[in-house]
Amino acid sequence: MDEKERHATPATGTGYSRRGFLRAGAAAGAMAAGAGAARADQQPDPLITEVQSWAQGWGDGVDATPYGLPIEFESDVIRRNVGWLTADVISSINFTPIHALDGTITPTGCAFERHHSGAIELKKEDYRLMINGLVDKPLVFTYEDLERFPRENRTYFLECAANSGMEWAGAQLNGAQFTQGMIHNMQYSGIPLRTLLEEAGITNLGDQIKDKWVYVEGADASSNGRSIPLEKALDDCLVAIKANGEALRKEHGYPVRLVVPGWEGNMWVKWLRRIEVTDEAVQSREETSKYTDTLADGTSRKWTWVMDAKSVVTSPSPQMPIKHGKGPLVITGMAWSGRGAITKVDVSIDGGANWQEARLAEPGVDKAMSRFYLDIDWDGSEMFLQSRATDATGYVQPTKDALRAIRGENSVYHNNGIQTWWVKENGESENVEVSS
Amino acid sequence: MDEKERHATPATGTGYSRRGFLRAGAAAGAMAAGAGAARADQQPDPLITEVQSWAQGWGDGVDATPYGLPIEFESDVIRRNVGWLTADVISSINFTPIHALDGTITPTGCAFERHHSGAIELKKEDYRLMINGLVDKPLVFTYEDLERFPRENRTYFLECAANSGMEWAGAQLNGAQFTQGMIHNMQYSGIPLRTLLEEAGITNLGDQIKDKWVYVEGADASSNGRSIPLEKALDDCLVAIKANGEALRKEHGYPVRLVVPGWEGNMWVKWLRRIEVTDEAVQSREETSKYTDTLADGTSRKWTWVMDAKSVVTSPSPQMPIKHGKGPLVITGMAWSGRGAITKVDVSIDGGANWQEARLAEPGVDKAMSRFYLDIDWDGSEMFLQSRATDATGYVQPTKDALRAIRGENSVYHNNGIQTWWVKENGESENVEVSS
Repeated sequence: MDEKERHATPATGTGYSRRGFLRAGAAAGAMAAGAGAARADQQPDPLITEVQSWAQGWGDGVDATPYGLPIEFESDVIRRNVGWLTADVISSINFTPIHALDGTITPTGCAFERHHSGAIELKKEDYRLMINGLVDKPLVFTYEDLERFPRENRTYFLECAANSGMEWAGAQLNGAQFTQGMIHNMQYSGIPLRTLLEEAGITNLGDQIKDKWVYVEGADASSNGRSIPLEKALDDCLVAIKANGEALRKEHGYPVRLVVPGWEGNMWVKWLRRIEVTDEAVQSREETSKYTDTLADGTSRKWTWVMDAKSVVTSPSPQMPIKHGKGPLVITGMAWSGRGAITKVDVSIDGGANWQEARLAEPGVDKAMSRFYLDIDWDGSEMFLQSRATDATGYVQPTKDALRAIRGENSVYHNNGIQTWWVKENGESENVEVSS
Repeated sequence: MDEKERHATPATGTGYSRRGFLRAGAAAGAMAAGAGAARADQQPDPLITEVQSWAQGWGDGVDATPYGLPIEFESDVIRRNVGWLTADVISSINFTPIHALDGTITPTGCAFERHHSGAIELKKEDYRLMINGLVDKPLVFTYEDLERFPRENRTYFLECAANSGMEWAGAQLNGAQFTQGMIHNMQYSGIPLRTLLEEAGITNLGDQIKDKWVYVEGADASSNGRSIPLEKALDDCLVAIKANGEALRKEHGYPVRLVVPGWEGNMWVKWLRRIEVTDEAVQSREETSKYTDTLADGTSRKWTWVMDAKSVVTSPSPQMPIKHGKGPLVITGMAWSGRGAITKVDVSIDGGANWQEARLAEPGVDKAMSRFYLDIDWDGSEMFLQSRATDATGYVQPTKDALRAIRGENSVYHNNGIQTWWVKENGESENVEVSS
């Protein structure tokens, strides 16, 4: 596994070179001297001097499509399934094409999905949300009822507990979309779950509130029930009616899903149907035989809800080869933590031997994804590219080996280890591991 | 125009009532006693006790569509054209359905569009950006070249100068989508224009930089050329390659558009082809016969680039009637300013006689849209609903009458006057004016 010997000299500094643009500059020089007046050593760029068909007639009018779609040239920027990963597409996974995106908001149309019994069609008129159990008065809300409660807007990431799960046993899937793409980051509009619980009334619980739970379930056949400590339910959970400004997609739980900030995606119940206040955790299928972390000795850790700090370089990466050769190179990626805002991301091009602090595009947001950039002058030699996130608690993303030393390799959940791309001299990358 | 006499008693305070939910509570009580065990005075809700077809079988698998679309039930939440507004759909307008959205990010698929000669198809491979004129060395960039420069991420609103333009002559179009929907708010990833200008070199300008201009034009047939002071170009303009994380839509200028934060949308040139550094403004069609503001005496104001602070209540509104009757009501809307962040939004339900401060969902963002909420207990009587934005400079959004007193009614541009919805007792609304 030790690939370090193959690593070349690190790029020197982050200085920006103009070399990459001289070719273009020469073409412009020709253009400046008049169309067609090429210098002897440089053909003018026909796309500037002659062929601009798009400037010679009408484009499309405004009534092209009811809902605006990406241009046809971007048809490969879609969420993708991996056929063999689950028994049936009904219960499978669509990975976000994080390698091809920028910014922090995940476009709704290509955002990660995971269903346990398929995505159901549930009309707003048919929607009901029951709150029952240890409440003062059980209540049922229609969708229209929910719209009448005070709303909040918050941006949060949702990450599947199994994101990067295949990586426990070593580098497996090739591409950031498949290794880290079970994630999305959206701006939610919703009602604080606290508000709805207080509407049903929890005054009867007195000071026992801190020991109680809620059991949340969806309206699909799987119901996907999960137990959540009442303390978390009263803290920052949202009953979301919009994502990224518009209605939730069917596959994201239309018309209503639960948002459990910073905690594993399976708890963000879609098509949210019922919230029961309970004395104890229900110990459902989804929190016993699944979504527990099996250790080396065969025992399992449970209640491993929080998604620890993690990051990944999205470009360059196996799906995003460097095509321009050496010189100025933008290295970019995403970082996130379920415990707070991202405060720092470091990038290594030599497999973790040396680190440079990357630039956060904007200040970190609590339990939301951050975009980072590192601008380097690539010398054209191979790199072992890594990123390492630090969050507001001071927690630093560990190596995969450090995680394995504690947790073994039996789990498929909660792998937040440092990812390595071996970027070759030809600009192509592979998912590899370096010893640490 | 004085509709004030028709206004009813203001709703008293913002207290939250549980009345609206007692019906639902009673149904839940029945449910809690066992399915089918209805109380004599209350039928159980069959959607809870019996019919839950969606919980009895598989939903759709993950391979339904390449790009995830909104559920069919939301097919009315689309950008819309107004046929008679322009001579041809080629040069027309698609309005954002702001009435139906929440949060602050405008979903790309339903975001405002305006074309001057139609939306063109321009491949990344064919894309070229020239910087010429008074630069040290003219340059031409390919798309791939642009990807190699350090990038920024920033969220900005784009508003057409003609947004609300029909309102100069009084209440016209009925619905927030049509009165204020020539706007969107996106997170852009792009290269600072300053970086590209410095790459071409502006050292030859010495201290004359503050007097110079850039002329920017697009690759479509209209070219839509506009002059921008070099000082603004060097300040916060971006050459954007992504919007809301993904490639720009064709209709938004794929693959590259200019972002001119806080300034009128016409200057945000799409399919950006050329940037020329010039001694003086070019005085193009788009900044002389168009996009100047004709005053009452027939003279025109020009260089009216900045979009002043503005706001609108998006719900309730003509397209968003109140269907639930009196009781708890969420009033929500958007506010924005080209001069800085929104610091305060006030809402009036009596046509401007009394104002209550609304709640901003998140702290205001420089030159981006803010979401506001006001939660009231509606007494069921008619309202004259208004919102009024204040920005970081202390500027307060004026009434339409105050604007007209200064600028007359000849212009179609820069109407940022306060909008009024007459909300009737039956919950339906109309676009009206009240004297001020």
